[in-house]
Amino acid sequence: MSGQTLLVGQSGGPTAVINSSLAGILAEAARWPRQIRAVYGLRHGVEGLLAEDWRALPADDPQLIAGLRATPSAALGSARHRLRDADLDAALAVLRRHDIGYFLLIGGNDSADTTDRLGRAAAAAGYPLQAVAVPKTIDNDLPATDHCPGYGSIARYLAVGVQEAALDTAAMRRTDPIKLVEVMGRGAGWVAAAAALGRRKPGAAPHLVYLPERPVAPEQVLADVEAVYRRHGYAIVVLSENQTEPSAGGTRVLGAGGEPEWVDPFGHAYHPSPAAYLCRLLRAELGVRARYDKPGTLQRMARALASPVDEREAFAVGRAAVRAALRGQGGQMVTLVRRSDAPYRCATGLAPLATVANQSRELPAEFIGPDAAEPITAAFVRYAQPLLGGPLPHYTWLSDSD
Amino acid sequence: MSGQTLLVGQSGGPTAVINSSLAGILAEAARWPRQIRAVYGLRHGVEGLLAEDWRALPADDPQLIAGLRATPSAALGSARHRLRDADLDAALAVLRRHDIGYFLLIGGNDSADTTDRLGRAAAAAGYPLQAVAVPKTIDNDLPATDHCPGYGSIARYLAVGVQEAALDTAAMRRTDPIKLVEVMGRGAGWVAAAAALGRRKPGAAPHLVYLPERPVAPEQVLADVEAVYRRHGYAIVVLSENQTEPSAGGTRVLGAGGEPEWVDPFGHAYHPSPAAYLCRLLRAELGVRARYDKPGTLQRMARALASPVDEREAFAVGRAAVRAALRGQGGQMVTLVRRSDAPYRCATGLAPLATVANQSRELPAEFIGPDAAEPITAAFVRYAQPLLGGPLPHYTWLSDSD
Repeated sequence: MSGQTLLVGQSGGPTAVINSSLAGILAEAARWPRQIRAVYGLRHGVEGLLAEDWRALPADDPQLIAGLRATPSAALGSARHRLRDADLDAALAVLRRHDIGYFLLIGGNDSADTTDRLGRAAAAAGYPLQAVAVPKTIDNDLPATDHCPGYGSIARYLAVGVQEAALDTAAMRRTDPIKLVEVMGRGAGWVAAAAALGRRKPGAAPHLVYLPERPVAPEQVLADVEAVYRRHGYAIVVLSENQTEPSAGGTRVLGAGGEPEWVDPFGHAYHPSPAAYLCRLLRAELGVRARYDKPGTLQRMARALASPVDEREAFAVGRAAVRAALRGQGGQMVTLVRRSDAPYRCATGLAPLATVANQSRELPAEFIGPDAAEPITAAFVRYAQPLLGGPLPHYTWLSDSD
Repeated sequence: MSGQTLLVGQSGGPTAVINSSLAGILAEAARWPRQIRAVYGLRHGVEGLLAEDWRALPADDPQLIAGLRATPSAALGSARHRLRDADLDAALAVLRRHDIGYFLLIGGNDSADTTDRLGRAAAAAGYPLQAVAVPKTIDNDLPATDHCPGYGSIARYLAVGVQEAALDTAAMRRTDPIKLVEVMGRGAGWVAAAAALGRRKPGAAPHLVYLPERPVAPEQVLADVEAVYRRHGYAIVVLSENQTEPSAGGTRVLGAGGEPEWVDPFGHAYHPSPAAYLCRLLRAELGVRARYDKPGTLQRMARALASPVDEREAFAVGRAAVRAALRGQGGQMVTLVRRSDAPYRCATGLAPLATVANQSRELPAEFIGPDAAEPITAAFVRYAQPLLGGPLPHYTWLSDSD
């Protein structure tokens, strides 16, 4: 019997729990020893496929599984490489040569596309391959799934971290009254919106949360921050590293005239920090200290603040991917299907890759509040709160009333 | 009997455990109900003293004590206000009016100075006051004490966080090979050096740690990073937000010609981010992506990564301050006195405020290694490792060999 080898890779920006999906794949593979004789882990995603660069992974090693479930980042190495059409023949030849029957790729939109095209190419060539995508992205922008593994953990990190950053400024308001926290999230506000989940009461910090879906002029930010500062004596502001501002042609990244400071060899533009720009503006206009925290990759790696719900779901989607592959359900991405908000219940499902690949899901309008002071709706709270994986820490405050 | 009221304040930049010192003061005060009839907490340090802005604190409330011990930042509000000589008469009048017998200020160098001058002014005026300083600073730059409460927690945060940030880049090295982490620490390298404590083995990430005590030209950083990148395929760099470079007049903050981007109303200069500057330089010169994480205040607030040893010591110095005040040992700062490195044992002591106020302790030469690739010595590891409060998480890695 052939095709009993499973190949797994990790792709795209890593998360605090993507290794739990790899652990889930190993744990499930161990349950089917007659169907899966060997598991190989690709180094750096599809780059490892083309280069035949992989390593054997023991499926039934409880210590490895426990280690992976406690480790952030992508233990196999990740990549942003997309499989081009010109690569498909070479990739199929590799699969054939090593008698690979199952191909699982843990990643986001690009990975779903790669998985889809590889699966189709195999089918067209009459090669029996079950190619299944496993969802992963802090950006929470994959369609067809209720949410994406990785999002709950960055949401918990920011819900807690912004509260802590706010306590710092609340204490230091007499000299350091304004703080911006610049967060990730590409062009969507899923990540920034999560920072508002930590608010202890309406009107409390973070006082202003800007979403890239709602372009805002620097002058408006200035006016908003000044109003909060006059009222509360300090101001906590959250914005995305890709926050937009209106421009003649539509929108552009806020600050510095929208000019990128660098364009990489792949043509991706990198913009200077909108928070750094706004801090300069705020200091000059308000005459008080403004500073910014830019947690960068720390926000997606912080294992100490990972969501336990997110971790369990990341493990579950890995297991579900193996079962789907064994049932012959290639060409699908595993999804999370919510059964209820309270109590929170969620199961795994499947969606055809064709409906997922290269699509992205924006923060829906019903989750976005009227303005930066009220950035999210009750519907978003119902959606996102369970993903945090438990209550947030309760902190003690003895000074000013707000 | 008079003078049975204790006044406590918090001052300077907050930490993850400064509230534990407040909790220690309350817990110890509760043990001496005949000597201490009331405890009042100043809002925003000495600003609250001059404004008579304080609140009663119950000494024997276990829930409050537990809450404070789990809360970062300064729950009473902090300040950078220094008591000027012109304020001393007004401050003494307030103490007299409210019959304050004990004055405890939790803070750094400036607070020690304020405590010293208030105590001396009281003595000169024949007013019976026991003024005791309680040490606190992430910067670890107070003299006379082995280390400062607050330092162990930021050290643990950076030892773990930089490892996590490094795992992210190790996974993404094919497209995002260079990461800088910009940390706090004023003009001293205590904080940056702590990031090197997380290294799994010699030569592992963080590959380069720059210390403000060792000025470095941007061109040297570029050469160092390029060499690491060529060798390992990625590079993790830690530097202080006040990293220095050589200049004609001595040294200046690295980047942007050493020009501050803002000078606040008190005359403090604020410099643009050296990491942002270096990223632009690295991208332009090496043609690869370089990014930076700037955790800012998150690094001193992260309760989930606070050091348990640091938390217990912060509590202990608060208790010791009350006992010193009751014994009539005003004019002192509580210190930490190390008894042994392994097993780590530390007790509290006292040092005259005159030997502490306005002094600052640099990272000693015997703790500094030969260069950024070997930034710390075995002596520093012996000193700092116990302060992390326990083993660091062990992470699993399955890809490239380094």
